[in-house]
Amino acid sequence: MELSLNSATVRKQWNLAQIVEGCARHGIRGISPWRDQVAYLGLSKSASLIKKHGLTVTGLCRGGFFTAKDWRDDNRRAIEEAHALGAQCLVLVVGGLLPGSKDLILSRKRIEDGIAAILPEARAAGVPLAIEPLHPMQAAERACVNTLEQALDLCDALGEGVGVAVDVYHVWWDPKLEAQIRRAGERILAYHICDWLVPTRDLLNDRGMMGDGVIDLPLVRSWVQRAGYDGFQEVEIFSELDWWRRDPDEVLRVCLERARDA
Amino acid sequence: MELSLNSATVRKQWNLAQIVEGCARHGIRGISPWRDQVAYLGLSKSASLIKKHGLTVTGLCRGGFFTAKDWRDDNRRAIEEAHALGAQCLVLVVGGLLPGSKDLILSRKRIEDGIAAILPEARAAGVPLAIEPLHPMQAAERACVNTLEQALDLCDALGEGVGVAVDVYHVWWDPKLEAQIRRAGERILAYHICDWLVPTRDLLNDRGMMGDGVIDLPLVRSWVQRAGYDGFQEVEIFSELDWWRRDPDEVLRVCLERARDA
Repeated sequence: MELSLNSATVRKQWNLAQIVEGCARHGIRGISPWRDQVAYLGLSKSASLIKKHGLTVTGLCRGGFFTAKDWRDDNRRAIEEAHALGAQCLVLVVGGLLPGSKDLILSRKRIEDGIAAILPEARAAGVPLAIEPLHPMQAAERACVNTLEQALDLCDALGEGVGVAVDVYHVWWDPKLEAQIRRAGERILAYHICDWLVPTRDLLNDRGMMGDGVIDLPLVRSWVQRAGYDGFQEVEIFSELDWWRRDPDEVLRVCLERARDA
Repeated sequence: MELSLNSATVRKQWNLAQIVEGCARHGIRGISPWRDQVAYLGLSKSASLIKKHGLTVTGLCRGGFFTAKDWRDDNRRAIEEAHALGAQCLVLVVGGLLPGSKDLILSRKRIEDGIAAILPEARAAGVPLAIEPLHPMQAAERACVNTLEQALDLCDALGEGVGVAVDVYHVWWDPKLEAQIRRAGERILAYHICDWLVPTRDLLNDRGMMGDGVIDLPLVRSWVQRAGYDGFQEVEIFSELDWWRRDPDEVLRVCLERARDA
């Protein structure tokens, strides 16, 4: 599998222009930018710089947050940006509980309704939507879609134009993972890698570099490939205490090296 | 539902004798002690003190850790202790990955084999085993049984004498929770309550008091009751930064007050 760099991995050290140039310099041929970084550089400038270096945009991070107030306009813009960048998908971090609410069932219904509402525009723009199930420890604040099974049930209900982003960090623990990856098949729109550290010191920003944790990455990759996925593997590491503090060229070198073994 | 106090809730302030006396003083009629506290006070002394105050032992914490080296003897002793205390069940925290391994599938197989191995002794002693699915964020280190569905699949495979402990902290996020509680039925041997704080600052010891977080406790309780469970609700709060630092009499008062609303 070829490597793609999720731009969050070196977001503390570099802006998007530096990240694109870094990828080109290191021979990384895919990128998945975050929207705030795209906005900072400018959408058309971002698109032309990425194109100039011949990078594949394996995803745009992120749409979603359907339980927030401005979800409608924000997702409309996200679809336009994904289209402009030629992204293979728009990654949806769907949002947590409705503000002030403990109602998971209602929050999940809102999320389904939200995706259904933006789906016609996404289809028209040719932008597949990738529902990313997030780790259950992030259910309250970031996403109350928390298993691949749940994400695929949503896909079943929503029809064409929706798939999933499989991030090992969020799903590695799931006893039904192999079966659900098989079920997902061609609906796997993105495959994200990193590692689960022992101990994990923070619920959001303590992800590990591939090989430094306990996830059996070759095994999960074999399942994803057997399901028919032949795209990039995208490295996405949020690491306040380690990788965000390192020389970004070193980070990219280690990503390449470790991804080969993953 | 009557309240039971899991002794971990005030473990930093009181020893087991003080906890038993505290329960009696506050009119809490159930207790679930941890084995290290029982060992410190002495098994027969613990049993007679609990009996003297007429407390129901809603569980003994804990057996399990089948991926550790000494699991066989340790679980044998745990069953004997649960029997001596007249505990309604022995709670199994089943253990995480085998030491040095990334093999979740093998680790889970070892856990099933381990429970099967101790089950005849548990049956003979009249001690039901309660498999407690733990939150996926604790899969690597503490328990790689991580959903109620997975725990019930194990029960199905193992037969009589095994059930589940449903702790809201571990399972509240699960999209299949209602269905799996219904499926569990009379196999629910214990029901544990606390709350999920937003934000959560630690993966192990930052549980909230009922009402301080986002778990819809009345809803989950209604599911558990509808499944036929008519035992105690057991409050279990690990809280390094808050409740372990408070006056334990205050903790017990607040537990009682909040449990009424939960």
